[in-house]
This record gives sequence, structure tokens and C-alpha cells, in this order.
Amino acid sequence: MFSGAQISLYPLTDGHIQVVTDALGALDPYQHRLRIETDDLSTLLIGPPATLFDAMGDLFVAACRGTSRCVLSATVSRGYPGEPADPARGPNRLVHLTAPIERRIELAVERLAGAPRKNQPVAAQFSLYPLEGVLPLAEIDGCIAFLKRSGQFDRSKPLCTKLRGDAGPVIAAIRESFLCFGAPGGHVALDMTVAAGKLAAAGTEAEGRPD
Amino acid sequence: MFSGAQISLYPLTDGHIQVVTDALGALDPYQHRLRIETDDLSTLLIGPPATLFDAMGDLFVAACRGTSRCVLSATVSRGYPGEPADPARGPNRLVHLTAPIERRIELAVERLAGAPRKNQPVAAQFSLYPLEGVLPLAEIDGCIAFLKRSGQFDRSKPLCTKLRGDAGPVIAAIRESFLCFGAPGGHVALDMTVAAGKLAAAGTEAEGRPD
Repeated sequence: MFSGAQISLYPLTDGHIQVVTDALGALDPYQHRLRIETDDLSTLLIGPPATLFDAMGDLFVAACRGTSRCVLSATVSRGYPGEPADPARGPNRLVHLTAPIERRIELAVERLAGAPRKNQPVAAQFSLYPLEGVLPLAEIDGCIAFLKRSGQFDRSKPLCTKLRGDAGPVIAAIRESFLCFGAPGGHVALDMTVAAGKLAAAGTEAEGRPD
Repeated sequence: MFSGAQISLYPLTDGHIQVVTDALGALDPYQHRLRIETDDLSTLLIGPPATLFDAMGDLFVAACRGTSRCVLSATVSRGYPGEPADPARGPNRLVHLTAPIERRIELAVERLAGAPRKNQPVAAQFSLYPLEGVLPLAEIDGCIAFLKRSGQFDRSKPLCTKLRGDAGPVIAAIRESFLCFGAPGGHVALDMTVAAGKLAAAGTEAEGRPD
């Protein structure tokens, strides 16, 4: 199965290029497991879907060490029929996805419990797009049911779900949403935003909660 | 039809909050046509789909006046059955979408020709997700065929298509992709990134092209 991500880091500081450059070393341990290509807008990661999220988490936390305000934005996809499958990069079907949705909610909760903390408070939001399968809304509803049990749920918003907590379990909750919902071998896409520090994303002072 | 966007502005400067605050006035002319709600991660716009893109373009260009490096990131959606339809906000079916795809490619090119320039060079990339309809890949292929004729096409990337040009026609090309492809009354989502100025999005110096 093809799976990949286009990710961008936005340090909200005059020194943003240095922050990104310094953070990149966090991807070194992934060089043998992921195809990594960068241009001026984003970095492409291609590889096993769970590994994509591990790499994103490590990169983001490394960037946060260089600035008090930083955003990671990513588009993630698996199973897109327009991209070549790569057997070396992961299974063609996520076989656990053949289980009933109630079981997959349990599975996602169980898998999330092992996520290490990263000591980096974040707010995040994401949208899940099950592009194939007979009941996409049922998959989305199942995913939201999982998120409400994840300990990271902040609230539902139009078009997306907002999470809040430590970067480790928050990014892991997005990872499990991607891995446990949608068709086993079908196309699933997700877009995500993870933010650290107080920021005015599009117009207001930040909410002022402790961070 | 429900249509809306969650948009975020990321000025890559220490003064990012001031840049965003100053730019927000650009949304004032839309207050009567859009529902607008902001939190610490994004601003929600709900309204007629074409108007969403006009508002995003005006907001982004206003922010660029305050900083040399700025990114707009947005998730846009129409027809999502999980959101309430609102007859006041636009038609329930985009009737031109019942035309054959070849005709819609022509229509998108024609509509794009009227897009005013904004004198703001940008690079952009986006992904289109036709979540309903019998031939989602045919819709994506048709959209790419339109983009290659748009004058704004830079290149295809895994997971997305990259554009480059003036903010006016670039954002209009994304708007026409959203309006001219996908099922007439079905769920279509899109995520987009528009960037001005040299930036290191996720790891390199910018490409160094004139901007």
C-alpha cells in the first residue's frame, strides 16, 4: 500500500529557517525507513503509515525546542490508487480494519495507551476523509467515538475535530484515527494541524490556557 | 448545501499576532455573507463556496502586506452530510457539475480567466478529495487536466498539485477545482496551502526564485 505525508513546519519567528534547519536532524533515524524529499513548501515522507506519524512527532518536538510558537501542518494519505504501491513500505491491507467498528474503537484506545509523552503541550485539529468504502460516515462517527475516549478530545468543530494535550498522545490519537478507520485497502486521507505555544492562527489572541 | 472552511494564517515573524490582527479587517466586507468564528487554531468561514475563496484571498493578501513571509493553510468542504444544509448559504446542487467532465474543464478555464491579479507572488499546493460519486479518480484527473491549462501549474507532487503565480489566479484556480469537479450535491473536501515569500517549510532554504 502506498502511504505518505506532505508535512510543513511553521515556526512563528523571525528565525524560522534556523529553527527548521536545526529540527531536521530529528528525521535522521528515519532515513532508512522513509523516502524523504523536501522542497520550498513541504517535506514528503513515504513509508509505513505508523512510521510517518512517529517521524512527524519527533520533527515537531525538535522544532519546538527552538521556538515558543510552532505549527506543523500535514496532509497524510494511504491507499491512493493514483500512487504506486510499494510492498517494502507496508502491507497492502491493514487487516485489523476488517474487524467491526466497535472492536476497532477498542483497538485504537488500547494502542493509544502505549504512546509515550513528549512533554510538549499542544492543541491540534484534523479531518479524516475515508474516500472508499460503503459507509464513510459510519467510519467518521466511529473515529469520533474513539477520540472522545482518547483523553485528548477537546471538541468537535465544523469540518474537523480538535484535540488538546501532550504532543505524544495527541499525535498518536491522530495516528490511530488514520490506522483504525476507513477501508482496509482503500484510500483514506487526513489533514492535520498541531500547534505549540500561544498563537493567533487566524485572528484572535490565543485562548490563554496554560502551555 | 453546507460549505465552509477552516483557515489559518501563519506569518513567519516574531510579530505574527499583530500581522494577523491587522489583516482581519479584510474580512469585514464579508460579515454579512459569511458566518465567521475564530479560535486559537483557525477561523471558520461558512457561506457560498465561491465566496469562501474570495475571503481567503483578501485575508491572505492583507496579511502579506504586514510581513515578507506568510502562509495560509485551509481545509475546505462542501456537501458534507454531517453538517446542516443552509439554503441561505448557497444552492443544494452545483448544477453545472452535471455537465460532462470535458465541458467542466473548459468551464473552469473560462471562469479562471476573469480572476483579478493581486500583485502578490505565491507558491501553493492542494489536494482535492471527491468523497462521493462513482468515479472519484476521473474527477481528480479532470481537475489536473484543468490545472495544466490554468497557467498556474507548477508540477504534480505525490498527494497534491503545486501551483505558482500571482495570488489572484492561483487561489482562483483552487476555487475552480473545488467548484467544477466532484459530485454536484455530494461531499467534496480540499486542503490547501498558499505561501508568500521565501520560506523553509520543512527543511530547506527556499528555492530562491524571484518573489
